[in-house]
Amino acid sequence: MNHSNFLSALTNILGERYVLSDKTQTASYLIEQRGLFESACLAVVKPASTEEVRACVKLCDEHDISIVPMGGNTGLCGGAVATEQQIILSLERLNKILDIDTENYSMTVQAGCILANIQNVASEQDRLFPLSLGAEGSCQIGGNLSTNAGGINVLHYGNARDLCLGIEAVLPNGTVFSDLSSLRKDNTGYGFKQLLIGAEGSLGIITAATLKLFPQPKEAVTALVALEKIESVISLYNLIREASSDRITTFELIPSIAIEFTAKHFDEHPNPFDTAHPWHVLVVVHSANPEDNLSELFSGALETAFEKELISDALIAQNLSQAEHF
Amino acid sequence: MNHSNFLSALTNILGERYVLSDKTQTASYLIEQRGLFESACLAVVKPASTEEVRACVKLCDEHDISIVPMGGNTGLCGGAVATEQQIILSLERLNKILDIDTENYSMTVQAGCILANIQNVASEQDRLFPLSLGAEGSCQIGGNLSTNAGGINVLHYGNARDLCLGIEAVLPNGTVFSDLSSLRKDNTGYGFKQLLIGAEGSLGIITAATLKLFPQPKEAVTALVALEKIESVISLYNLIREASSDRITTFELIPSIAIEFTAKHFDEHPNPFDTAHPWHVLVVVHSANPEDNLSELFSGALETAFEKELISDALIAQNLSQAEHF
Repeated sequence: MNHSNFLSALTNILGERYVLSDKTQTASYLIEQRGLFESACLAVVKPASTEEVRACVKLCDEHDISIVPMGGNTGLCGGAVATEQQIILSLERLNKILDIDTENYSMTVQAGCILANIQNVASEQDRLFPLSLGAEGSCQIGGNLSTNAGGINVLHYGNARDLCLGIEAVLPNGTVFSDLSSLRKDNTGYGFKQLLIGAEGSLGIITAATLKLFPQPKEAVTALVALEKIESVISLYNLIREASSDRITTFELIPSIAIEFTAKHFDEHPNPFDTAHPWHVLVVVHSANPEDNLSELFSGALETAFEKELISDALIAQNLSQAEHF
Repeated sequence: MNHSNFLSALTNILGERYVLSDKTQTASYLIEQRGLFESACLAVVKPASTEEVRACVKLCDEHDISIVPMGGNTGLCGGAVATEQQIILSLERLNKILDIDTENYSMTVQAGCILANIQNVASEQDRLFPLSLGAEGSCQIGGNLSTNAGGINVLHYGNARDLCLGIEAVLPNGTVFSDLSSLRKDNTGYGFKQLLIGAEGSLGIITAATLKLFPQPKEAVTALVALEKIESVISLYNLIREASSDRITTFELIPSIAIEFTAKHFDEHPNPFDTAHPWHVLVVVHSANPEDNLSELFSGALETAFEKELISDALIAQNLSQAEHF
């Protein structure tokens, strides 16, 4: 099948520079993180606006070419793998923060914004965008929403779905769905935007989103706790949840093997406990007000946990560097 | 059109007692709260299980009869108004609490459960189901979810959508969609259940739901605040939001006319302030730990608001009866 008409029509829309078909140019888009799949493509296209995405999708619809939307290509499930009959549509040039409304604790961003940039812009305005995960330096918010990402703060702030107020997307027939509402109590119409979240780009390409922001935590208390029985973990979680008034941000279960491996391979990270324990939990609680007595409440909860024999030892970080060490 | 075959088939499914067509029996289902619409119906049917709902929907599909699902019939938008060619399907007999998992902070209920009953069952287990609204003594959770209800705690806990982990529903063709997951970090598959929430029963009839529970607040501080300028309201909200570490549950704006009307018609409710103010806000902050210093933090925030001239006066309830009085 000859795709030269299709490719030249794409070039007419985006300009030659943003339609890549040469393998030296497309190679970096074909990397599959784990090397489990082989990816290929007819072309990589890089639109710079919702309108350009719309035009590409419409053209693909007319030529019966399927599309693999791509964010930061940091996924580990092969979700961005394409075939040589498909185009890869990279959102990387839709990378503008469109609006930040600190009074309303919301911001509107294009889908190709890097997660860490969004976090930073919010933080500069004394606001928190809580989605945080390993790939945050290169993953894009459109991909986070399309995969309904969780991340390390999921316990307190929820999945990407819970952090999203509005969505703009280009649907498969080339129409633009636009619902960039920043209203929290919005129960008008069908929850169609909810269907786009977590759909991996299969129902439409997310081009922009309105996100929820939160008060920036001003105080965080970090503890590393040792447990003898895994059965105690949920009781411990609930005890700290109640004591902190639902302000646990991180609660990470760590088996002894992880502590041993780290101690073995990194001299600077010995086992922080004097003796070995089968299970550990890294807990972080946070507050937006430094005058809070959260630290005492947290210590109190750990004492109670010790008395109830849920935990056998606990280390509370005395400063930021110790917290990071944990 | 003769519907006698259809009605006798319905009776075969549900039993005579649960297919009402006599006007004396159906009258209470035809009430439209505001008297703005006239409602009618072919019959009111009262299934007692998901299976019976399924059988009714399948029969209606075969006979091309449309269905108006009905919860507590407390809506004020005419959403439960039917015509004489339609049946009303009342969920009132699907009123069982199926499961409560206090460790997981979740419960699974049938759609016809009265909201206040759900709140009470949670509360007896030291858990909070935060959805709360005027009609809670008679509205049903299926209706709350189908209308994506907000209620008085919406600021902190979100709409009904945010409180729902899983949904079971009967779809228009008589198949049962079942996704009663209680997993919070669930990003498998399409968010179809999200589409059923807020769809007013038009895409399917919700028959059961898994709900999120929260730690039961153990301390609440209530204040009535006077403002001279409505422009200060959002700044006040944000100031208290930060100071309380995001623990505002209620924030209700009240104009002077409401205070005047109440004072005029209820001798026991005089204006609590010495002088008249154009605007007032009723604020409640909460904590799950009575040893919290929330009360001091809240007073501190109100002092700051006074210094910044956001508010001109403030009354903090000294006890529960004063809080209720506010």
